Amino acid sequence: MSIEVIPVENLPIFHKGDDLAESIASGFEFSDGDIICIASSVYSKTKGCIRQLDEIVPGEKAAEIAGICGEDPRFIQAVLDTTEDLILDRPFVLSQLKCGHVGVRAGVDNSNVEDGTIIYLPPEPMESAEEMRERFKEITGKDVRVIITDTCGRSFRRGQTGVAIGWAGMTAIQDFRGDCDLFGRVLEITEEAVVDEIAAFANFIMGESDRGVPAVVFRNCGSWKGHDELYFRPEEDITRKALKRCYMAGDDL
Amino acid sequence: MSIEVIPVENLPIFHKGDDLAESIASGFEFSDGDIICIASSVYSKTKGCIRQLDEIVPGEKAAEIAGICGEDPRFIQAVLDTTEDLILDRPFVLSQLKCGHVGVRAGVDNSNVEDGTIIYLPPEPMESAEEMRERFKEITGKDVRVIITDTCGRSFRRGQTGVAIGWAGMTAIQDFRGDCDLFGRVLEITEEAVVDEIAAFANFIMGESDRGVPAVVFRNCGSWKGHDELYFRPEEDITRKALKRCYMAGDDL
Repeated sequence: MSIEVIPVENLPIFHKGDDLAESIASGFEFSDGDIICIASSVYSKTKGCIRQLDEIVPGEKAAEIAGICGEDPRFIQAVLDTTEDLILDRPFVLSQLKCGHVGVRAGVDNSNVEDGTIIYLPPEPMESAEEMRERFKEITGKDVRVIITDTCGRSFRRGQTGVAIGWAGMTAIQDFRGDCDLFGRVLEITEEAVVDEIAAFANFIMGESDRGVPAVVFRNCGSWKGHDELYFRPEEDITRKALKRCYMAGDDL
Repeated sequence: MSIEVIPVENLPIFHKGDDLAESIASGFEFSDGDIICIASSVYSKTKGCIRQLDEIVPGEKAAEIAGICGEDPRFIQAVLDTTEDLILDRPFVLSQLKCGHVGVRAGVDNSNVEDGTIIYLPPEPMESAEEMRERFKEITGKDVRVIITDTCGRSFRRGQTGVAIGWAGMTAIQDFRGDCDLFGRVLEITEEAVVDEIAAFANFIMGESDRGVPAVVFRNCGSWKGHDELYFRPEEDITRKALKRCYMAGDDL
């Protein structure tokens, strides 16, 4: 059975207080089990996850890091305000957010918002996804699933791809442990990050520029079993340990 | 317009010498512009990218690394034979292949093949993708695009996802440089690794276990402009530099 992936087009530009779920659901006939991918930037806008740069007073650490990486100290302060653990401060700021996601500049962004403002990721993206899911249920009566997406760089490979930062109605990881391969051997690859695979393709459909589509619906994706431990614990994360070791030693990378 | 993603089901188990393109194309009506994602494991099988473990004589380095990471020395020798640059030898072997792809165990795998054998990635995956594309053209007369996919872990996040290791008929990266965002500002995010975003979702549809589907067709994906520099050069890759520094210093990660 083929999977249908449908961009939700002709949506307005959103502002704080707008009912994003209602806008997406109007003009779209949901089915039970649909997966609705929503760009975090648009969700953040409707929730007012926006700050005016000229209202931010950078602290000492922000000023120091801004000097190192050549950014606006107020912007770096906004990054530090959403950072749980700083992993690198050069050649760019890389940090882990409270929700577990690791991103450059802690996902704080200054594109697609009016000049002089920055936009930050939803601070509780799992709750955001659940909230959207419940709102879709209220409006449409349908039992849909939701992924909140962000766009990120990665190791070894150039270019950004979409990832999931919040999800509801499904597990992040499909767990194949105990399954057998085609020859009856126990599988070596046992955990697949399916929410990220779906978010990646959603991001491709969304696009990045002024052709941007903030929501994409996936139909007929089936269901799976697994768990939600999408983020490595710091002590099991080889990359994080290597980066942090260089950072703590003051090594330039 | 919605995108259709169609698993190519009911394919046989493939063996060396089989015409993979013909099997995929039979029983499927291609359209111009379709993107055919093909699992590298299946491509490798038809091309005989398989070795018998008992025919591999491990060298000194393979024996040493096998001792460190607790693997079969013959398996490590197969990994080294496809490795261009060794990045880590513990807690697992991570290396860059000649084609530029970085993977754990250099992508050498011992699942889904008969016991006592290992399977390695197509050594020239760009040529493989082009060859498949030309063969599809011969068979069907249609101008399709091809992605050869692999399944990989990543930094910070648990679980494997699909990535592209070879592609033909499109660029790997969609380049937004010079484009403006919704407010007319020049975009900060300028390069999107679209082949990886497509490969990721293809991998989700393929599955990992005995329900495996080796090929997935994407229809109505549009086209884009960009380039093929999918892999960071070693000197611009922060993660690689940090990992290698720890490796060279003999630090355990």
